[in-house]
Amino acid sequence: MAAETFIAIDWGTSSRRSHRVEGGVPIASERDERGAAGLVADDYPAEVAAIRGRLGDLPVMIAGMAGSNIGWRQVPYVEAPATLDDLAGALEWTDERTAIVPGLCCREAGRVDVMRGEEVQLLGAAAAGLVPPDALLCQPGTHSKWAGLEGGAITAFVTAMTGELFALLSRQGLLARQLTGTVAPGAEFERGVLEGARCDLAASLFGVRARGLLGQLNGKDAPSYASGILIGADVTARIDSGREVHIVSDPQLGHLYEIAVRLLGGKPYRVDSQLAFVAGISRIWELAS
Amino acid sequence: MAAETFIAIDWGTSSRRSHRVEGGVPIASERDERGAAGLVADDYPAEVAAIRGRLGDLPVMIAGMAGSNIGWRQVPYVEAPATLDDLAGALEWTDERTAIVPGLCCREAGRVDVMRGEEVQLLGAAAAGLVPPDALLCQPGTHSKWAGLEGGAITAFVTAMTGELFALLSRQGLLARQLTGTVAPGAEFERGVLEGARCDLAASLFGVRARGLLGQLNGKDAPSYASGILIGADVTARIDSGREVHIVSDPQLGHLYEIAVRLLGGKPYRVDSQLAFVAGISRIWELAS
Repeated sequence: MAAETFIAIDWGTSSRRSHRVEGGVPIASERDERGAAGLVADDYPAEVAAIRGRLGDLPVMIAGMAGSNIGWRQVPYVEAPATLDDLAGALEWTDERTAIVPGLCCREAGRVDVMRGEEVQLLGAAAAGLVPPDALLCQPGTHSKWAGLEGGAITAFVTAMTGELFALLSRQGLLARQLTGTVAPGAEFERGVLEGARCDLAASLFGVRARGLLGQLNGKDAPSYASGILIGADVTARIDSGREVHIVSDPQLGHLYEIAVRLLGGKPYRVDSQLAFVAGISRIWELAS
Repeated sequence: MAAETFIAIDWGTSSRRSHRVEGGVPIASERDERGAAGLVADDYPAEVAAIRGRLGDLPVMIAGMAGSNIGWRQVPYVEAPATLDDLAGALEWTDERTAIVPGLCCREAGRVDVMRGEEVQLLGAAAAGLVPPDALLCQPGTHSKWAGLEGGAITAFVTAMTGELFALLSRQGLLARQLTGTVAPGAEFERGVLEGARCDLAASLFGVRARGLLGQLNGKDAPSYASGILIGADVTARIDSGREVHIVSDPQLGHLYEIAVRLLGGKPYRVDSQLAFVAGISRIWELAS
């Protein structure tokens, strides 16, 4: 077994992805729903052993919510500005060949923020040259992360619970009956983005209901319009005209953010989030080996 | 039975209030949870008969969600600008002594909005001289209504689903465990109002979690801080410095909005919402008699 071979796990709240990485390349991968929210701390040794059983009896590097207060053990945050070297220097080893990568916290102008897992992808994107060392990165999702990079370090970041608000509105309350379909790019999504740019979220969202009642929005288009409002408000709060944004994401959500960034005057670039994760965790593994 | 005696019902989504009104004064009142969301159209005749059984065999004027597509029968919206005369002229009579007051819709600069029930309180406040004929009115709640009055008519209005967002966040998702307590005026509510004034709701709300994780916000204060964010964003989107706002509300929520309006540079005035409702529905009853 070569030193450059290990298992990387991106352990999220609701799901996880595991990769057998050889020389920086994922040669076997799996994804399942055994996220941190469905586990207790005592479950982790057996979970990791089972992953080793499937992907190989190898060292394991874990990023994400496994290191949170709902995970295996709480690993203190590294404070921004931070690099991959800082993360590698603050690994939490649960035994001599199993480590948890710390998350980041950020304190800036009276505001605070936290992330766990995204830091590996964002810094990995820079380490692999997928984004410039000085850049604005966006990782959209349940909790969208927007991070400023300077010289390859994350200097500051903001989280917006954009995806979670959509999920909450879809499950309960006034708009739930309208938000049962799928979100798709198109005219209603773009109309939503421009409405969201008013930065008046609670009123714009009521407009989904009002437009429906007055026959201006059909049921099929309501999810796209509502998603456009939320993404439009998120992007507007983060960019000025002409700003380059590097979107680290899966293809579908990345495309929606790409449309919104362009519509609001920014310049979007796309980066594959899995590629960025493997690049980041491989670099941490190298630094720790 | 004098002609000036009738029963007024404010039939909301989740609850309703009924009053026996004599000469413009409520002399008997009741409140229960039999709102429109828990009833089907066929339930209404028996419900109204039961209220008559308790409050008197009198004419009945109904405002609110009984006139919606989840109520007794759908009464078309009256278009703003609108006065109490316009509402009285568009009553929907279900029989010769039972009428439903229509709601209002508003189309302005490409935006649309709707209300059902609040129009009686807002126009009633003006008719009774509780607010000036030209004023900005706010009726905070699950769906906060902000209405501009000119010459005693509602000319335009906006709804913000401020209260509903708080309820959704309290029930499910990332912040639910922090939002179990009560909202109270004080330093954390005011801090939330100022954070909300950034008009970056999805990010400010994630800050409730981040401040909790980093030990900057204790559990008892989290609901007040989160409520402050939502109310602060709502008020900021609606007023400029020095703006007078007439808050038509129950005392508790009205006080929170009063604090936010003052903190954000406006001049708040308070109006009792029940008084305003009885004034408005009594005037409609007079006009229709």
